[in-house]
Amino acid sequence: MLSKAQIKYIQSLQHKKYRQKSGQFIAEGDKIVPELLSEGVPVQEVYATTSWISAHEQLLNNVRVTAVDEAVLKQISALTTPNQAMALLNIPEPTPAVLKGVVTIALETIQDPGNLGTIIRIADWFGIKQVICSPDCVDAYNPKTIQATMGSIARVRVIESEIIPLLQEVPSYAATLHGTNIVEFKKIEEGIILIGNESRGLSDQVIAACTYRITIPRLGGAESLNAGIAAGIICGRLLI
Amino acid sequence: MLSKAQIKYIQSLQHKKYRQKSGQFIAEGDKIVPELLSEGVPVQEVYATTSWISAHEQLLNNVRVTAVDEAVLKQISALTTPNQAMALLNIPEPTPAVLKGVVTIALETIQDPGNLGTIIRIADWFGIKQVICSPDCVDAYNPKTIQATMGSIARVRVIESEIIPLLQEVPSYAATLHGTNIVEFKKIEEGIILIGNESRGLSDQVIAACTYRITIPRLGGAESLNAGIAAGIICGRLLI
Repeated sequence: MLSKAQIKYIQSLQHKKYRQKSGQFIAEGDKIVPELLSEGVPVQEVYATTSWISAHEQLLNNVRVTAVDEAVLKQISALTTPNQAMALLNIPEPTPAVLKGVVTIALETIQDPGNLGTIIRIADWFGIKQVICSPDCVDAYNPKTIQATMGSIARVRVIESEIIPLLQEVPSYAATLHGTNIVEFKKIEEGIILIGNESRGLSDQVIAACTYRITIPRLGGAESLNAGIAAGIICGRLLI
Repeated sequence: MLSKAQIKYIQSLQHKKYRQKSGQFIAEGDKIVPELLSEGVPVQEVYATTSWISAHEQLLNNVRVTAVDEAVLKQISALTTPNQAMALLNIPEPTPAVLKGVVTIALETIQDPGNLGTIIRIADWFGIKQVICSPDCVDAYNPKTIQATMGSIARVRVIESEIIPLLQEVPSYAATLHGTNIVEFKKIEEGIILIGNESRGLSDQVIAACTYRITIPRLGGAESLNAGIAAGIICGRLLI
């Protein structure tokens, strides 16, 4: 059973202000919660239906679990169709980015939580271990972002940092509409791939500070590509 | 002014049943409506605020326009935050797919309207003129699909067709998790790129009938990629 105060607390974590205050966030979903548990991510508490709990017993050793019914899950869920399980986690302590010898994705002013989550999932697919977000990106612990990562938040570190100071250390590849055709680049082993805001792209300052400006050639009529799609296509050319 | 019956009619087009019955659909948005008009797509009627109408006068020659206030737009919009303009269009007459000499994307059982719209936008970016949808795909004239195409629905034909009969004509490339690494394929000028359902992928029958099975190599932990992202990465390898 959850008390009214606990329900109120979990609901409050839908808002960035309360996540920052408490240092905690919620991940929900029948796919994400087991993934967090099996990856050994320190989960503070699981709220789930009794049937979900019995089906996942082997994952719940040493985890605090509270059984809730579907009515309560509906109350504490950020989704219109709530799942069978939710997890309460601590927002990881900030760590500095490690850039040498690895490929990193850095995002400037990404505003859509779904795009951020999708890019974290792409990073995870391609073995990228960290995604850097400029301070004005949407919050990575937003329920919609967590949902869109499909569990990849368990394996990819999200680091909030100003972008420009990082560009001194390793080669950087700015996604722009007027750069060098991406087919002219070979597979890279080190560097920062930069993706900008959904409508404005990267800022002029970031573009100017990057080593390379790269462009996905446009063969048809669409004015632009979604930021997540652009990130995927670039990773599909530079990382494999 | 719109009559109550007109408002009810436009609202009904949010549902596939009424779109099929009437043969009409709605596209809304400050970006999509001008794009449809400037591409010369036959728009049956535009519903927009007076300020939007004066700002887009040059596009509205020979187009039936009804000025509506924001309260009415809110009533007839399928979006939580309605736009300044909506367009009423006829669903194009079905035409057979033309496969020789061109690249086509074919989708089997895509269920998410946002994914379908995103894939239509990717097709448009890469100059693909038609997207084939199996009969059990989400409806392409769903408001969320139209929204996600960001105007590309004006340039890409969506053709509903069974997939397997099409695979005799040209080479076909099935996106699967256990095929040949996509880096081993060169740029193609003709063929069908096949993307399957969000959770199950392509059916065994379709995979068996395809010429090639292609796989985006997985270097990290994510179990899968979003269908739209996979389509983007494959186009980014096979078309440029």
